[in-house]
Amino acid sequence: MPMDANAPIEVTAMAWVPRGARGQVRDMRVRWALEEAGLSYRTRLIDKREHPECDTAQPWAQVPVYREGDITMFECGAIALHIAEKSEALLPRDAVGRATAITWLFAALNSIDPMQQCLTFARFLGAGQDWADGVRGAVIPALEGRLVRLSQRLGDKDWLDGRFTVGDLMMVATLRTPPKGTLAMPDNLAAYIERGEARPAFQAALAAHLADFLPDEESVPA
Amino acid sequence: MPMDANAPIEVTAMAWVPRGARGQVRDMRVRWALEEAGLSYRTRLIDKREHPECDTAQPWAQVPVYREGDITMFECGAIALHIAEKSEALLPRDAVGRATAITWLFAALNSIDPMQQCLTFARFLGAGQDWADGVRGAVIPALEGRLVRLSQRLGDKDWLDGRFTVGDLMMVATLRTPPKGTLAMPDNLAAYIERGEARPAFQAALAAHLADFLPDEESVPA
Repeated sequence: MPMDANAPIEVTAMAWVPRGARGQVRDMRVRWALEEAGLSYRTRLIDKREHPECDTAQPWAQVPVYREGDITMFECGAIALHIAEKSEALLPRDAVGRATAITWLFAALNSIDPMQQCLTFARFLGAGQDWADGVRGAVIPALEGRLVRLSQRLGDKDWLDGRFTVGDLMMVATLRTPPKGTLAMPDNLAAYIERGEARPAFQAALAAHLADFLPDEESVPA
Repeated sequence: MPMDANAPIEVTAMAWVPRGARGQVRDMRVRWALEEAGLSYRTRLIDKREHPECDTAQPWAQVPVYREGDITMFECGAIALHIAEKSEALLPRDAVGRATAITWLFAALNSIDPMQQCLTFARFLGAGQDWADGVRGAVIPALEGRLVRLSQRLGDKDWLDGRFTVGDLMMVATLRTPPKGTLAMPDNLAAYIERGEARPAFQAALAAHLADFLPDEESVPA
């Protein structure tokens, strides 16, 4: 359903990013949550090449910013939780299910993502420099160790706590971030990512996310 | 108030860590939240030298695990939010204040902490290796840039949104993690950290956290 110019919810997104980043900018996670919850939204697109500060409500000059009436939020995790509070499709109503879903939401963002961010720093800030190999050699084994443990927790279940929650949304969004082949991914986690990406809400969010970008002009420097 | 062997809330903590880690293990953040909320808790102490898997409810073989009736949680951010839901001392009841506090909670854990974790990897995994200097040279400027932006958002206020919330608790806990002198800390952020550490609830949590450790025997390898 979602894109609606008159919707009360507004999400900022980038008007242009290099091809390799498309599908991964973090408004994608917010759009996915909104689609799962069945909530319409409008977007405000920002061309960072012209507005390097982005939306000043976002202190790190990034997207997304989420606006809904008097509420202004940033941080995809905070926004995803806020949306999840509105819909049992993302957050179970019982206390145990709720606590478990929120635990996995934070686990994605504070126990998996930081190691991946470290690899991202190496890839971009360390491009062509020897130290980037040192980082990869140290961080990849540590991260793969966590993936094995996560794989054990998932087991043969479809989702981390049996049914899909905002915790799975963020875990799948996190696990699908590194370029394919960067990490040894246990089979059941690879299937878990595919299962997440196959959800109609993910596909609708991805289509809307991609459709909002200006054409990728190869002549424009990344 | 807090430590009470009969309390319904249980928090796991380490029975022993090297001296340099004392005051920083993440049960400290949960204890602080419980003290702010005025909730009693009991601890279950685990000696990781004898039980390397720690509490198996924690998938990364770490602490804390939080138990309360049927609820079992890990991830300090998820637990802090769960506690904050119980007390207006940590989470404003109005929608805007609540959304803002939760935004800062996630900002600490997903926009500041990952860069710091990258420096921690360099410090421990890269000790004595050239690549650790490369990481520091790339990540410290990026992180210090965020600290400047955070400093601008704090301005001359005592707390990020005027009054103390769970967002400040996690931001202070995050900012106080790197060894002193690692980062150029803007003056108002340095004062903000001191203000957080001066709170009676922080001091009570720190005293209980430190009191739970076995003696630091220098002969035991870290």
